[in-house]
Amino acid sequence: MEKPYVIGIDIGGTNSVFGVVDARGTILYSDSIKTGKYEDIKDYISILSYGLKGVIEQAGGPGKIRGIGVGAPNGNYFTGCIEFAPNLPWKGTIPLAQLISESTWNIPVTLTNDANAAAIGEMTYGAARGMKDFIEITLGTGVGSGIVVGGTLVYGHDGFAGELGHVKVKENGRICGCGRAGCLEAYCSATGVARSAREMLATRTDKSLLRDLNPETITSKDIYDAATKGDKLSVEIFEFTGNILGESLSNFIAFSSPEAIILFGGLTKAGDLLLNPIRRSMEDNVLKVFQGKTKILVSQLKESDAAVLGASALGWEVKDS
Amino acid sequence: MEKPYVIGIDIGGTNSVFGVVDARGTILYSDSIKTGKYEDIKDYISILSYGLKGVIEQAGGPGKIRGIGVGAPNGNYFTGCIEFAPNLPWKGTIPLAQLISESTWNIPVTLTNDANAAAIGEMTYGAARGMKDFIEITLGTGVGSGIVVGGTLVYGHDGFAGELGHVKVKENGRICGCGRAGCLEAYCSATGVARSAREMLATRTDKSLLRDLNPETITSKDIYDAATKGDKLSVEIFEFTGNILGESLSNFIAFSSPEAIILFGGLTKAGDLLLNPIRRSMEDNVLKVFQGKTKILVSQLKESDAAVLGASALGWEVKDS
Repeated sequence: MEKPYVIGIDIGGTNSVFGVVDARGTILYSDSIKTGKYEDIKDYISILSYGLKGVIEQAGGPGKIRGIGVGAPNGNYFTGCIEFAPNLPWKGTIPLAQLISESTWNIPVTLTNDANAAAIGEMTYGAARGMKDFIEITLGTGVGSGIVVGGTLVYGHDGFAGELGHVKVKENGRICGCGRAGCLEAYCSATGVARSAREMLATRTDKSLLRDLNPETITSKDIYDAATKGDKLSVEIFEFTGNILGESLSNFIAFSSPEAIILFGGLTKAGDLLLNPIRRSMEDNVLKVFQGKTKILVSQLKESDAAVLGASALGWEVKDS
Repeated sequence: MEKPYVIGIDIGGTNSVFGVVDARGTILYSDSIKTGKYEDIKDYISILSYGLKGVIEQAGGPGKIRGIGVGAPNGNYFTGCIEFAPNLPWKGTIPLAQLISESTWNIPVTLTNDANAAAIGEMTYGAARGMKDFIEITLGTGVGSGIVVGGTLVYGHDGFAGELGHVKVKENGRICGCGRAGCLEAYCSATGVARSAREMLATRTDKSLLRDLNPETITSKDIYDAATKGDKLSVEIFEFTGNILGESLSNFIAFSSPEAIILFGGLTKAGDLLLNPIRRSMEDNVLKVFQGKTKILVSQLKESDAAVLGASALGWEVKDS
């Protein structure tokens, strides 16, 4: 193969990580820069392209690179732009794919949001290999999703489909970061789980290991640690979370009837503490015709590599030119 | 064209209507039989094929027919079977596509559910011509849906995707015909609207033209008639219905970001009484990135023809053999 590699770039609010990836999903060379440090997009692109050129030279030069895939919050596949991403320093619409391509020997660049990139990575290298219909749910600081129907990612007419973290799951529910109320993300993200802990600690009086911690800085990891020590309230927090997520998944199944729903991200480390209530609640709530059909799986992408791998998978989609 | 026609068969709980359709969507010859009269599927197929042969002969014989498309409740596109359809007389799994094909010169038969057929009909002959991403919502006795993503109907891994009438929209809500509680169908079908009327009449004391009617037999048509005469409570019933539907649509948009949501069926005759609250509620509830982007349209398929046309559109999908 003349161009044996692709590049994946994962742009997060804190770091931008990038790497050269081969067809088997091995990250050969990688590097990262701080996203938040560059308030002017020109400075960011200049530093990013310096880093990209470094790994590209290591891989044998631009002639070896088939394409660059970028996963970024609010990244639009159709336009190649980042549009109004709340966690990134640049405001308005940024033509990111074009800027990156222009600064790196005009290698073709494809952009999508981070959850879509995770879904494509899962299909290319992970738990969804061979699947044509699945939903990837990312449970991190927020809740994201990438939906695959008939082997193709669902982008919608505008490139922004798959915002399942902002499906409303509670009437008059918690205020979400998006400004609306009752979103799935407000309950089932890592920060949502911490909110549940604070709520339960404030409204109840039963003992809990969590009471030794400062409620304002409590994390989902703290709750997991307490739950594994048998802390009842912590176990209940995961049950509460799993119940809401499972019921939401039962609604998502009514939409696209996926073979599997694949959970990705830090919260999945809670394992059966979270997965059991999810599965139970999903099966209890799903329409009869779908009962027992949809698998709940945990991502097989290593978390440290997943974002770069997922983004890189987009690089293979580049048409020969 | 050697085979210029297709056949559409719409199987409803009461009637089975079928017709020969040309490429412009004109129904050339049609006929119908009573579905409910034949409790044995063999008898049904025998009478249906007799009728089909009649219209096929009128059209010039089986050599003129490219394929047969069937829309039926719980019809599975992948298997060609009807599976556990609650409103049809036959229990269990019925290999309908095969039975019809065998009884009509082995013309290829494609089957899907009635709402999917409506979506395909809309895309082929109606308001969705040229659209690649839209959702068809059928508002009849029940609430059905057909979802089109990237120009292709979403069937899911098992052929049953697109059951948006059974997305839960209310916690501890009304019991639905499916046995679960709080489904969209329990509120926004024609029967759901009549339930809303009965609930409001029972729990309130304000005057209404509807109080002259027997609440047990009230229909959505009665409520529409009263609303057009200025009956406040009837107007409120449509607002209540539109609010719930609009909020649900805002969640569906988060899934597939369609260019349009197309409403089909008897309830759409309520016009702006229903459409205005739907549009308002949808825009009030939708995630910012989708605001003002998704059109709410009313089907352009004539209701009397739509089911047969929709089903017939499947007939064009037959591969040459």
